[in-house]
Amino acid sequence: MDLLRLRQLNALAVIGVLRGEQPLTLTDVAGRTGLSRASAEDVVRELMGKGWVAEAAPVAGGVGRPARRYRFRADAGRVVGVDIGGHKVLAMLADLDGSVERRVRVSVTPEMGRTERLAAVAEAITACLQGAPEVWAAGVATTGLVDGAGRVMFSDALPEWTGLDLAAHVGGLLPCPVRVENDSKLAALAECWTGVARHARDMVFLLAGLRTGTGLIIDGKLHKGFGNAAGSIGSLPAVGWIRAQEHLRSVEGEARDVFAAARRGERDAVAAVRRYVKDLALGASALVLTLDPEVVVVGGGFSRSADVLVEPLRRELDRWCLRTPEVRMSTLGDEGVALGAVRLALDHVEEHVLDVRGSPAGAGRSAGSP
Amino acid sequence: MDLLRLRQLNALAVIGVLRGEQPLTLTDVAGRTGLSRASAEDVVRELMGKGWVAEAAPVAGGVGRPARRYRFRADAGRVVGVDIGGHKVLAMLADLDGSVERRVRVSVTPEMGRTERLAAVAEAITACLQGAPEVWAAGVATTGLVDGAGRVMFSDALPEWTGLDLAAHVGGLLPCPVRVENDSKLAALAECWTGVARHARDMVFLLAGLRTGTGLIIDGKLHKGFGNAAGSIGSLPAVGWIRAQEHLRSVEGEARDVFAAARRGERDAVAAVRRYVKDLALGASALVLTLDPEVVVVGGGFSRSADVLVEPLRRELDRWCLRTPEVRMSTLGDEGVALGAVRLALDHVEEHVLDVRGSPAGAGRSAGSP
Repeated sequence: MDLLRLRQLNALAVIGVLRGEQPLTLTDVAGRTGLSRASAEDVVRELMGKGWVAEAAPVAGGVGRPARRYRFRADAGRVVGVDIGGHKVLAMLADLDGSVERRVRVSVTPEMGRTERLAAVAEAITACLQGAPEVWAAGVATTGLVDGAGRVMFSDALPEWTGLDLAAHVGGLLPCPVRVENDSKLAALAECWTGVARHARDMVFLLAGLRTGTGLIIDGKLHKGFGNAAGSIGSLPAVGWIRAQEHLRSVEGEARDVFAAARRGERDAVAAVRRYVKDLALGASALVLTLDPEVVVVGGGFSRSADVLVEPLRRELDRWCLRTPEVRMSTLGDEGVALGAVRLALDHVEEHVLDVRGSPAGAGRSAGSP
Repeated sequence: MDLLRLRQLNALAVIGVLRGEQPLTLTDVAGRTGLSRASAEDVVRELMGKGWVAEAAPVAGGVGRPARRYRFRADAGRVVGVDIGGHKVLAMLADLDGSVERRVRVSVTPEMGRTERLAAVAEAITACLQGAPEVWAAGVATTGLVDGAGRVMFSDALPEWTGLDLAAHVGGLLPCPVRVENDSKLAALAECWTGVARHARDMVFLLAGLRTGTGLIIDGKLHKGFGNAAGSIGSLPAVGWIRAQEHLRSVEGEARDVFAAARRGERDAVAAVRRYVKDLALGASALVLTLDPEVVVVGGGFSRSADVLVEPLRRELDRWCLRTPEVRMSTLGDEGVALGAVRLALDHVEEHVLDVRGSPAGAGRSAGSP
């Protein structure tokens, strides 16, 4: 482990313990992190310089000079998360705890070209930033395959989107580091952070909707793959995702009408949903057999039809898997992807905890909101 | 991160820098690990008490009292790795650097029952331990599905093997902690440690032989799954591993004869190998599309026929994968699994670096071999 990495880990450990309810003394910090008191003091001083930590107001009463106490400053900086989809652009402003302070939604259409969609992205971000304090990082979610540098390698869902350098484009709108990632991957991140898979270390997320996608959390971390192409099982014809949605189109009406008809017990609709679930489960089984996750979370548009999907999906998984994991429906609605983008931005600032441009909270004062 | 974990990480960081060629002073250790000098001194003292570290002989010459220098003691303890297979039991004794000091091989047959095979295991381990210094941990490899406690949940390859509490059995032969894991998983571990995938963080290992199996290394770590059942893609009929070897049996002779005939260009053999590779590649593609690894390593008995396998496999992967990883043949021969078991034992002692029963190397002397 290199020196900087160890320093960052120590800094993150200190932030972790200071995130609790009560301000802590240096002795508390040392005791809870396992650092020596001298190291704890070093780290706290450095974090104060960067703005992450402030001295708390002294406690009244007691005998003698009370020990100084320190607290995490969730409001030291902000992050932005943006979900760029076919039907909407959703931008969120959040503090360093990830509490969302502002949401801006701009409607778009699946047919829009690159210029129009990027104009909607600019509109959403600008409105989101209005009057906001310093933004430390941004996360951006898009459909398609995204490379490690934030360029869209391939997208068949959005017109004129393949080849777009999205990181550079959004970087021009925001004076901070920008990370871009695939939307299913970020929805997975959100489920483990603030959704139904909060306590899972290993999770398979299925985006079930007009597209079928997946995001994998392995050992508590988003798994991207060597070329950022992990989770592409859907492109293997043998597992059936390519044809999965076709079954729903075999019955008249929108997908939600088909699910509603299946709910009422209409035979054609019930059969169509069964065929859809069979194909969805085949690809899901390939993922489950490969990774043996604790839980499978189903999100995306179809997660609103949980009542007609969950049980059939569980039964199909049971057919193929050696150990069928828990199956849960997402409760994040259509905000999951944007929340994942917020988490991506938070991950960036936490990985660079000692590199942020600090807005120092001086040692001698009790820093409040900016 | 809890306190003990941080202490272990600091201890491992110190061991890591002391593993180099030259003994180091405390100032060196502090500089290279990022610990304060006081912390470095604490950790070094603790590691000396446990036997991991010794003071090196003072350097002659120079002016004034030279600073004390410290070195890693690879010979402070030993680990044992055991591969229990259908045709052989192979036990290895290795030092804390993983250098193998002794190999004991006992022949068995696929038909042997539980009692006979366990007698061969006892024979191999006893011969391996003879006159050996203290053993700190053992790793055991077996075919089949192994649970987290070292019990064989299921094995169709070895008779009377399902349900065996292998950890308890081997624990009765060895006075140290015993870890048990599936053989393909451990072969994967060996490839990343000392084989052709040494520099890969993400790797898919294919055991290609009379059985087809897989082991996954994700982010530098063996991926086990929530129920220890990861890598079971072979049980999904859609990906073809269940029938893969059948193709080779369609031509007269043992598998190696079929490969030899294919090498000579005999038509039936070439066709049989092509069908085998197609099925192998389908399952491998499911793994690659899911994980997007840097490299796929092929080991097991068929890896000796690399010349007729690698190119067809690469071509088939190219057909299905968005990004075809590098394909390499293992060079560890039939020792890969046992080496993986050695690595498993070393992982155990490194995770419990501060818990080992120390054979202390006193601060005042230059400790040599035990």
